[in-house]
Amino acid sequence: MEAFSDGVIAILITIMVLQLRQPHGSSFAQLRTSFPSLLAYVLSFVNIAIYWNNHHHLLKAIPMVTGAMLWANLNLLFWLSLFPFTTAWMSENGFAATTVAVYGLVLALAALAYFILQVIIVRADGPDSRLGRVLGRDLKGKLSFASFVVSVPLALVWRWASIAVIIAVSVSWLIPDRRVEFYIRSIARDHDTDR
Amino acid sequence: MEAFSDGVIAILITIMVLQLRQPHGSSFAQLRTSFPSLLAYVLSFVNIAIYWNNHHHLLKAIPMVTGAMLWANLNLLFWLSLFPFTTAWMSENGFAATTVAVYGLVLALAALAYFILQVIIVRADGPDSRLGRVLGRDLKGKLSFASFVVSVPLALVWRWASIAVIIAVSVSWLIPDRRVEFYIRSIARDHDTDR
Amino acid sequence: MEAFSDGVIAILITIMVLQLRQPHGSSFAQLRTSFPSLLAYVLSFVNIAIYWNNHHHLLKAIPMVTGAMLWANLNLLFWLSLFPFTTAWMSENGFAATTVAVYGLVLALAALAYFILQVIIVRADGPDSRLGRVLGRDLKGKLSFASFVVSVPLALVWRWASIAVIIAVSVSWLIPDRRVEFYIRSIARDHDTDR
Amino acid sequence: MEAFSDGVIAILITIMVLQLRQPHGSSFAQLRTSFPSLLAYVLSFVNIAIYWNNHHHLLKAIPMVTGAMLWANLNLLFWLSLFPFTTAWMSENGFAATTVAVYGLVLALAALAYFILQVIIVRADGPDSRLGRVLGRDLKGKLSFASFVVSVPLALVWRWASIAVIIAVSVSWLIPDRRVEFYIRSIARDHDTDR
Repeated sequence: MEAFSDGVIAILITIMVLQLRQPHGSSFAQLRTSFPSLLAYVLSFVNIAIYWNNHHHLLKAIPMVTGAMLWANLNLLFWLSLFPFTTAWMSENGFAATTVAVYGLVLALAALAYFILQVIIVRADGPDSRLGRVLGRDLKGKLSFASFVVSVPLALVWRWASIAVIIAVSVSWLIPDRRVEFYIRSIARDHDTDR
Repeated sequence: MEAFSDGVIAILITIMVLQLRQPHGSSFAQLRTSFPSLLAYVLSFVNIAIYWNNHHHLLKAIPMVTGAMLWANLNLLFWLSLFPFTTAWMSENGFAATTVAVYGLVLALAALAYFILQVIIVRADGPDSRLGRVLGRDLKGKLSFASFVVSVPLALVWRWASIAVIIAVSVSWLIPDRRVEFYIRSIARDHDTDR
Repeated sequence: MEAFSDGVIAILITIMVLQLRQPHGSSFAQLRTSFPSLLAYVLSFVNIAIYWNNHHHLLKAIPMVTGAMLWANLNLLFWLSLFPFTTAWMSENGFAATTVAVYGLVLALAALAYFILQVIIVRADGPDSRLGRVLGRDLKGKLSFASFVVSVPLALVWRWASIAVIIAVSVSWLIPDRRVEFYIRSIARDHDTDR
Repeated sequence: MEAFSDGVIAILITIMVLQLRQPHGSSFAQLRTSFPSLLAYVLSFVNIAIYWNNHHHLLKAIPMVTGAMLWANLNLLFWLSLFPFTTAWMSENGFAATTVAVYGLVLALAALAYFILQVIIVRADGPDSRLGRVLGRDLKGKLSFASFVVSVPLALVWRWASIAVIIAVSVSWLIPDRRVEFYIRSIARDHDTDR
């Protein structure tokens, strides 16, 4: 499951570059017309990288793969797979209000899918799940989801504020999820003690 | 063989999004024109995910890779690789009768290829193949193949009925193949007993 | 090296489908205009599958990866990576003489690159290389290379004969390289005896 | 991390071929119009191959993956992911001065990102890092970075000299990084002695 997800995410993060339209001429002035595209590309690249990073840590903590996890994972990959579409649509229409709203909506649905996957994994880990305790109420995850949800109507009123919210949430995740990282190290430590 | 198949399937499921045409404007009304495309994308995404899921379980049960399996597997990957083509053709022509028929035909041929691969693997597993007994007469697989075959002429008469048949078969497979999953667990149990 | 090569080959075999142009209408008559494209696609799919299959067997037999092998391998991947280009160019120009010649030329250069990789691996395996003895003079490989070389000028004189030669060589390789397969089994047997 | 990076690099090296424009006709004369494209493709293919090769050796030497390494690695992958864009822009504008400058700039930023990743890995390896001693002052890496930086303004004055510099640096890296290779073997030797 990890190899397949890694594969899909690697492809998604890469094919977005195929939709970076080249400027029509070769001057610097014309290259500047590609800037919105490039910024949208960077934003989506960072968001997919964040999912890859956290997803990677999360899957490491799985005790056994179940059918429910497979489908929750595919659900997440589905929403991630729409990123190239929403990114291209947004950047080619100069960050028009509607396109930003749809971009935020797909971000929100991906965050929800990630949350569902996480709940299923914690549940499979049992009532005393250490991963569950480490994640706690996962305030950061819930807040991100809420922010993305808010960014949707906000885009229709004041699109730059919506983009600012999306960027802020993305930047806040650039710091890797130390809780899960911590959890994995604690498992590794126990293994060493067992030996 | 599994890594290569996973790679090909991961790429197929992802590149389909490259063929999602963006609406020409940025309004919600114009986004609605992308809806047929999006629905076709979801349908193909789900179908490829189903193949990945079952294929994954099937390959886990292989005792030893033979040349025949390699080619049967490549045959399956070939038909799957046509999904992006038939999906795009169907959605860009507003689900025209002919395009639905071709979409159903490729689904039928992929189902047949999967069936052939399965037969080869069961045969290699010997006359008392546990996988063979678990799959039994594989009624679900045969029925799906038959339904896809029926969807081809049906599309030319009444295309929406044909689409309904295809969706119904797809939904029926969203439940993972518990028989093979069960089989793998029974193998794992035996291994534990052997030790 | 094997994972990377598998990745590149998996991507190559898949992206070719992105260049399958859809017919302009939705009727069967118009679908027929896609037939040359589809045939060229099948031919290239089969050829890349053959390389994957044999390459897979060859790499299994490597004792230790050297820098020379890495570059010989990248050289092979480079020529394989031109297949989508030559396939699309040939099929979109109705198998025009020049395009068939270039298609055959890239096939010949890929065959040469494979041959070089094979020589480097056999040499690294030492003078008594079992793989070397199994491959022997590799008449089949040399004959294929020679046929592809012949197909280049032949295309300019009589293009259908050239295509026939290319198809004939491809079909002859659909049978997996039993010599290397045999070699791997003999290694496996020795391992069992050693224990 | 290695699997994901290998995946991204494999995809990048392959999708560039999708941007090789086919000549409009089928004659050899018209194929010649694709030559600049093809040369740019070869140059970028070689550069990505060099990164893959050295990156591969570098990651082998990592004692433990940290969050900083993950992000330094994603930073490198980001700059590599712009290669298809800059390659296509440069080749489609006949190697115009501005496009060569931007091509060189992205090469410089990728070299810088590689350098940062290397520093982070050496630092994590401790003050007596053997990898650090083997790399030494990494004169070759610094010189390459400096040359790419120089190629940017040079392109605006005399573009062919700029291209010559880029080609010269690329060729100088075709020889694999023997220092790291040597280091890995020395580790392997120690392991053998330990047993």
